[in-house]
Amino acid sequence: MTTLLHFEEDLDRATAIALAAKLRPAVMHRHRFPDGEVKLRLPTILDPQVVLLRSLDHPNEKLLELMLVAQAAREFGAQHLTLVAPYLAYMRQDMAFSPGEVVSQRVVGKFLGDLFDAVITVDPHLHRVSTLAAAVPARQAIALSAAPLLSDLIAAHHSQPLLLGPDEESIQWVAQAAVRHGFDYGVCKKTRHGDRDVDIALPPIAVVGRAVVLIDDVASSGHTLARAASLLGAAGASTVDVAVTHALFADNAMEILKHAGVGKVWSTDCIPHSSNAVSMAPLIAESLMALFSQEKEL
Amino acid sequence: MTTLLHFEEDLDRATAIALAAKLRPAVMHRHRFPDGEVKLRLPTILDPQVVLLRSLDHPNEKLLELMLVAQAAREFGAQHLTLVAPYLAYMRQDMAFSPGEVVSQRVVGKFLGDLFDAVITVDPHLHRVSTLAAAVPARQAIALSAAPLLSDLIAAHHSQPLLLGPDEESIQWVAQAAVRHGFDYGVCKKTRHGDRDVDIALPPIAVVGRAVVLIDDVASSGHTLARAASLLGAAGASTVDVAVTHALFADNAMEILKHAGVGKVWSTDCIPHSSNAVSMAPLIAESLMALFSQEKEL
Repeated sequence: MTTLLHFEEDLDRATAIALAAKLRPAVMHRHRFPDGEVKLRLPTILDPQVVLLRSLDHPNEKLLELMLVAQAAREFGAQHLTLVAPYLAYMRQDMAFSPGEVVSQRVVGKFLGDLFDAVITVDPHLHRVSTLAAAVPARQAIALSAAPLLSDLIAAHHSQPLLLGPDEESIQWVAQAAVRHGFDYGVCKKTRHGDRDVDIALPPIAVVGRAVVLIDDVASSGHTLARAASLLGAAGASTVDVAVTHALFADNAMEILKHAGVGKVWSTDCIPHSSNAVSMAPLIAESLMALFSQEKEL
Repeated sequence: MTTLLHFEEDLDRATAIALAAKLRPAVMHRHRFPDGEVKLRLPTILDPQVVLLRSLDHPNEKLLELMLVAQAAREFGAQHLTLVAPYLAYMRQDMAFSPGEVVSQRVVGKFLGDLFDAVITVDPHLHRVSTLAAAVPARQAIALSAAPLLSDLIAAHHSQPLLLGPDEESIQWVAQAAVRHGFDYGVCKKTRHGDRDVDIALPPIAVVGRAVVLIDDVASSGHTLARAASLLGAAGASTVDVAVTHALFADNAMEILKHAGVGKVWSTDCIPHSSNAVSMAPLIAESLMALFSQEKEL
């Protein structure tokens, strides 16, 4: 057997993964002291193979907790530790954009690689680094993609949609979603002036009267998607929906999207959010089963 | 020369230490993204010897930042890294009080010991481990004490005060403060039922008409000190003041103390707070100079 460790707030997702992959779910307890420190309690009986489920949106405190949990789990008998982080943090900071900047991807990636034997995530934001293993040097670093599942969802709502990525980096997800059902696709050109200040240029594709779905790996402030949606509306698109893997949606991002004329907003449950429409549990479970059968063979 | 790295919010304390120890202060910049991630920027030119000033109250995010800074500083040329953490977090979680609890002191201590060549702190809350080196396995682990400075402050206000610790663990700080000026001292007996629910028994020392100063290393919720102050007031003490090294003072702790009849509240600047009355800069600077002259000899 394999133990699946999770916190109480992840009960639903943990149960779905545990059922699908035949893992033994076990809850961890957190106590917060008045001074901001946390005290964690794990089950004392662990299987030799342990999976930890923890999505890393708003990651800073969670990364510290991961370290506490991983080291305690080893003490309590875990011989093989897998992190399932449906959303993986700090992958976007993959170079120093000005001198002196800390390349957080490298530091956080090494930190996770040192703590865990295997790391499984969904659509990590890899741009200048081509594989997850280059960013997270765990023995096994597995990147799943939600693009096919988002494509299926879109196919259930539109017969001939145009899939558009808001910037050139999104081509990897857009193309993957489009080919599955033979949808038209393209990407916009983005110029970023600040966290909430971006310029977008639409691709030279006719959008008049078409159902357009904006696709991306992650939506954070929502400003990029909103800018694209406004331009699409002005260009005559009949509907503009949004489908993303990771629903970070900081601050009033959802309002900004609605205000820009976005209709539906769909996301996976990698990050819990009201827009969640796709469960990643089956795909994560499948990946875990493949990992463990492979480990058994070694 | 030695570089002293600090964030903007620590400018005053960094300047005082830099002046006293003849270090070259250099500010680090932090940008917070809408999704909660931080981006850090360091000066690109560092001396081979680098000191990082960072007090670790509300530690979870700060510990992640320490890792980012320490690893980047090494890349930018630091050959010897010293952490000056006037308040050191997670020292109180030094054993599993119930099965499965993570012994955070050990994990966080090892984390800091791996990142830094030397760690300097003030009055770490060591209880079941006797030395800082046992908790923080850095090559040099130096614990300074604020007790003599707090004692001098008390001596400037009271001629024959009674120094009392709120529990048996505080004996190490109370005794040290008392012997410096020949003050009477003792400790209370504490029974803890929860974070904010404690029972206190006063020691068998006459307090009628006396100026009592409650001394401790750290004040968090304030409930323990408040309970002791109420009992002392009821037992006839003429005044009850409070002197602590670390002013965590969570939530409405100061109000709770005032409500319990506490007069003055004094603290060191290990944690910035309105009660700060003692600067630790001279002692920290002295310790840094001793450390570096010792390193030079090696």
